[in-house]
Amino acid sequence: MELLKERIRKDGKIKAGNVLKVDSFLNHQMDIDLFSEFGKEFLNIFKGENITKILTIESSGIGIACVVAQYFNVPVLFAKKNKTKNIAGETYTSRVESFTTGRVYDIIVSKEFLKNDDRVLIIDDFLANGSALQGLSKIVTDSGATLVGAGIVIEKGFQPGGDLIRKSGIRVESLAIIDEMDEKSGTIKFR
Amino acid sequence: MELLKERIRKDGKIKAGNVLKVDSFLNHQMDIDLFSEFGKEFLNIFKGENITKILTIESSGIGIACVVAQYFNVPVLFAKKNKTKNIAGETYTSRVESFTTGRVYDIIVSKEFLKNDDRVLIIDDFLANGSALQGLSKIVTDSGATLVGAGIVIEKGFQPGGDLIRKSGIRVESLAIIDEMDEKSGTIKFR
Repeated sequence: MELLKERIRKDGKIKAGNVLKVDSFLNHQMDIDLFSEFGKEFLNIFKGENITKILTIESSGIGIACVVAQYFNVPVLFAKKNKTKNIAGETYTSRVESFTTGRVYDIIVSKEFLKNDDRVLIIDDFLANGSALQGLSKIVTDSGATLVGAGIVIEKGFQPGGDLIRKSGIRVESLAIIDEMDEKSGTIKFR
Repeated sequence: MELLKERIRKDGKIKAGNVLKVDSFLNHQMDIDLFSEFGKEFLNIFKGENITKILTIESSGIGIACVVAQYFNVPVLFAKKNKTKNIAGETYTSRVESFTTGRVYDIIVSKEFLKNDDRVLIIDDFLANGSALQGLSKIVTDSGATLVGAGIVIEKGFQPGGDLIRKSGIRVESLAIIDEMDEKSGTIKFR
């Protein structure tokens, strides 16, 4: 998606440890017009798939998923990272390790909201090591629902997540795949 | 907002400890069409205020804020609950206590994204004790931006947050205010 690549080139900042900072438009401040463009693009990619639900993970996936969902006319469900008073009853659970913080945590989704006749599209902002996406896809599988695929905004193609998950048979569509990025020169090479 | 009250009556579940469970449409599974109606309503309330930015707090405020923001044509900024690698540099910070979990935590917003010429609308899903709203409003004040007001989806009118914050001079507009709810009978009385 050319518009997104341009935006990453213009506003993305490469930091030590393979961190791409896109907090001016994607995951702290959020450019909602840009999110609408993601929605059009994902609809174009996944139309005809009869998607019934979009699944994402807190926190930075939620805004993107909600705007994208308007193009599919489906509800959004987000996996929670902590058990709160508000989720009681039976849940699907999966273990995830955050690339950004290094923390390991359980994600949970209430069983009530994923049924075996659901056709689920996972939406997330980043794909790096693939841990969040694996966790979400395990939850979909556990529920008996059909995982149609995953729509990712930015994939770090030089990290193993994308290859790993595609090899497992899951359709992964990323709007921008970064093959190389260099902190010193600030250059980014897209696939 | 009648549509919301009906939905709360139909799908809300009252739990012990004054918890109202609305996770089938508001803060776990999210009904995006309903969020669009919130957007129309908040635009109706706050139009003419020249809002330049919507501020919310992770996680359950984000989806609502992003859909609402489409009606104002402004970006969304969300306060983060934990410092991650992705927020470096100068931040505004405030302390918040969660009604739902009882945890106390710092919320942070990057200074880069709140300027003194911003006119900010805070959007959140719940107002109970008002701690999150006070934390967010402190951040807006610290930044020198103008706080236009707060748009809340569900206010628990029997808890002190709403009164407290209105008395401090902040405009708070809630789409549904609950004056009483009874766990045993399952009845909810709206203001």
